[in-house]
Amino acid sequence: MTTTAYERLVAKLKRVHYLGTVAGLLGWDEQVNLPPDSADQRAEQLALLAELQHAAAADPEIGTLLAELAPASAVEAKSNTMGYTFPQDADRGVVVREARRDYERVVKLPASFVTEKARHSSAAYHAWAAAKEHSDFSAFAPFLQKHLDLARQEAAFLGWGDRAYDYAIDKHDPGLTAAKLTELFGELQVGLVPLVGAIAASSVRAKAGVFKNFPVHAQRDFLREVTEKLGFNYRRGRIDVSLHPFCEGSGADIRMTTRFDADNPLDSLFSSIHETGHGLYEQGLPLAAQGTPLGQNAGMGVHESQSRLWENQVSRSPAFWRFFEPRFRQKFPAQLAAVSSADLYLAVNEVAPTLIRVDSDEVHYNLHILLRFELERRLFSGELSVADLPAAWNALSEKLLGLTPTSDRVGVLQDVHWSGGAFGYFPSYCLGNMIAAQLWFTVRKVYPELDADFEKGDFSRLLGWLRTHIHEQGRRYEALELVRRVTGEELTPKYLLRYLQERYAPLYLQ
Amino acid sequence: MTTTAYERLVAKLKRVHYLGTVAGLLGWDEQVNLPPDSADQRAEQLALLAELQHAAAADPEIGTLLAELAPASAVEAKSNTMGYTFPQDADRGVVVREARRDYERVVKLPASFVTEKARHSSAAYHAWAAAKEHSDFSAFAPFLQKHLDLARQEAAFLGWGDRAYDYAIDKHDPGLTAAKLTELFGELQVGLVPLVGAIAASSVRAKAGVFKNFPVHAQRDFLREVTEKLGFNYRRGRIDVSLHPFCEGSGADIRMTTRFDADNPLDSLFSSIHETGHGLYEQGLPLAAQGTPLGQNAGMGVHESQSRLWENQVSRSPAFWRFFEPRFRQKFPAQLAAVSSADLYLAVNEVAPTLIRVDSDEVHYNLHILLRFELERRLFSGELSVADLPAAWNALSEKLLGLTPTSDRVGVLQDVHWSGGAFGYFPSYCLGNMIAAQLWFTVRKVYPELDADFEKGDFSRLLGWLRTHIHEQGRRYEALELVRRVTGEELTPKYLLRYLQERYAPLYLQ
Repeated sequence: MTTTAYERLVAKLKRVHYLGTVAGLLGWDEQVNLPPDSADQRAEQLALLAELQHAAAADPEIGTLLAELAPASAVEAKSNTMGYTFPQDADRGVVVREARRDYERVVKLPASFVTEKARHSSAAYHAWAAAKEHSDFSAFAPFLQKHLDLARQEAAFLGWGDRAYDYAIDKHDPGLTAAKLTELFGELQVGLVPLVGAIAASSVRAKAGVFKNFPVHAQRDFLREVTEKLGFNYRRGRIDVSLHPFCEGSGADIRMTTRFDADNPLDSLFSSIHETGHGLYEQGLPLAAQGTPLGQNAGMGVHESQSRLWENQVSRSPAFWRFFEPRFRQKFPAQLAAVSSADLYLAVNEVAPTLIRVDSDEVHYNLHILLRFELERRLFSGELSVADLPAAWNALSEKLLGLTPTSDRVGVLQDVHWSGGAFGYFPSYCLGNMIAAQLWFTVRKVYPELDADFEKGDFSRLLGWLRTHIHEQGRRYEALELVRRVTGEELTPKYLLRYLQERYAPLYLQ
Repeated sequence: MTTTAYERLVAKLKRVHYLGTVAGLLGWDEQVNLPPDSADQRAEQLALLAELQHAAAADPEIGTLLAELAPASAVEAKSNTMGYTFPQDADRGVVVREARRDYERVVKLPASFVTEKARHSSAAYHAWAAAKEHSDFSAFAPFLQKHLDLARQEAAFLGWGDRAYDYAIDKHDPGLTAAKLTELFGELQVGLVPLVGAIAASSVRAKAGVFKNFPVHAQRDFLREVTEKLGFNYRRGRIDVSLHPFCEGSGADIRMTTRFDADNPLDSLFSSIHETGHGLYEQGLPLAAQGTPLGQNAGMGVHESQSRLWENQVSRSPAFWRFFEPRFRQKFPAQLAAVSSADLYLAVNEVAPTLIRVDSDEVHYNLHILLRFELERRLFSGELSVADLPAAWNALSEKLLGLTPTSDRVGVLQDVHWSGGAFGYFPSYCLGNMIAAQLWFTVRKVYPELDADFEKGDFSRLLGWLRTHIHEQGRRYEALELVRRVTGEELTPKYLLRYLQERYAPLYLQ
């Protein structure tokens, strides 16, 4: 049998993909199952897989095939931006275009650079963990500086010249730039400040300490019921327990995790729903295209839009709780006996500023991101030195959140991301919030009956729409193009602002 | 920095090893965690890993390094059979010798043959499962015939000429031959028949149905306590649930599985102890030598000797139960209230013939193996055709066990092994039983106080002895040589016979 160049390319891409899924499974297992003294052995396995995956991705045969497939495909890729339906040839154009993007990123980075960055990330992670424990930024500063230097080198290798921060952003969300984010986030901030101020001045407060002694096994049953109703297919995935919730895997095997606290059932429930949003996206990518860009997600921002939409727009809504409140009470009759419906719904939608991003409500969350984006931008432009970062963090925290960190541990050292050199990652979270809200207003125009669906515990119409318009597109479009096509409008923060206003004003500002 | 040829060889061997451990973990995960509809994706991952592992093991650079290291090492390997202590140079000789054995096995098999066998094994597995379900051997017969043909071809490729069955045995237990097994098993059979007959004639019988409603969580706690007391290190391993118990992993990460039946707590307990024996062996292999033959086990028979020794000699002993019976009763006070100590101990040591190997007690178990060995031997010699196999099975079953299968499902089709072409595997089980008993008599001469240890719940002296004499030797010796050195005697079935007599005569033949 003879195979075409395109078939050979796809076979090569699938090797890279499956090696990635194996490493992903080992990473999941490390968080969920690994015995305490097995970390060194796991590190050996992962280092070998990373090496093999890099070799597979940099296989010169991929370059040869791409060169052979280029001319025709370039035309196809162009014809491909004209409408919603895609003949097979156009699909091939997308695959070739995105495969080239990946291939160039891999082959332009010298192996010595990749090794140096991996080694530094490992050292920097441990330095960050120790520095955070002792709340001592100065111990982490040289590692952060080195990561900044490496990020600039990486951008230069990839041909981005001195646009290193744009490159860092593009890595997570192709097509986005610092300038575009500055514009979007600036408009968002203008709208957010008065809302946050008004809520801060409100006398309405969620009651503290109303949730006590929710047995873990019953929490587990309830979140299983909720996530199945939302549409997660447990024949192609599972949920387990880990220290920090996450979602791993692709195609037919999606592994989500959660954590349980007997006195905080909503934390487990909402973080599980968040991960379910990620999981639904991965389950909705076209399985037949697995291993090719058409079977891959469209970047971090779009991914986050899916988790946020299910977590916030859907699951903090009155309609959602009209269906699930009786079920929640049935699982925990004694624990909820003294909690009124109004108090429960207020707890679900509690708004209060906090120093810690991951503990933040969805109103303040965006401010945490604006802070980090602004500091990354200044670090890369040279306006801000690493030494001055903690003071700049604290000043921005006071300005945006009205809170000054009492120590670096709850300030500049709180997040793990920079210890891995993951600059340009934070903006994706806020981008996700904006996209989620814009999709939400779009789908509710198409299906005004969604609230009625939710009240019956039926989320299939919403999921079906997301499947068609987002999930099944794979990596066909960059985030901004996808939003434009699906919502008929450029990405704008106005829907996020409108959503937050509509959700929280009735609760806090009456 | 410059590396020596030996260091380069070890680095190459470790790559092969770690790829194997990754595949092993995926196999474990498949049995323990895999969502129902994820099997195809897992098969893709495993096929890719198998291909990469084969490429790593057949890396021509290994051949070059072995050729370079050969002359000196040959001398070292020889000097190496003189005593118990091994200077580093002698270690290197073992590594080179065993690496060559592995390398030749890999490179002498054409890739097309490996692919054909893998493909056939997959088809034969499904044919076997369907044939077993319908109890229809004829549907499986052509697949078995093809496996026999492939096994003969494989032996020829490896230079074993027409000694195909010897090669099949050597694959699992280096150094063993059909002739040697015929001699050992023949002597074993002569001794077993009168014991089995006497027990069959005894009026003593374990009571049926005495165990009811043992909660799974309490069973889990109890087996955790038992396996920890035996010495399993849960900082370097874990136990989970799967359909069939097994033990996977190596080095610092050993994964055992068990299963639970509320009405049969001893099944879970003893299969867990069996896997613990495997796990203790793997945990005792020298971690510093991981990835080289010195960090690998000495074959299937030796492996099985470790699982059997802990399962049978240790955990069915009166001394073991003097310590654990009160703890067992404490966990299950109501369930055991009406069970006398004598009845409990008889249940632990129940002897009764059964058609099914995996349900067999340790007395009859060996007869199940003699049956399979005899049939494999005849199939390979040509005395027996595949078409005549069921009749031959049934006749031997009647002769050895006194039971004729009522259908192929509980006869010739009961085991999975042949569907994968794993001839020469069954004898390892019986070999393991013989080795276990011979080690048992040896260690009890060295430490006559072992019973007193066990009564105090202390198994460390036994484990320490096994660590030094078996585990830490890795693949240094072939099984027969290891037994000779450690016990001071050639392998003989007389210790197994003596052990069975001493354990079961007091119970059944008084």
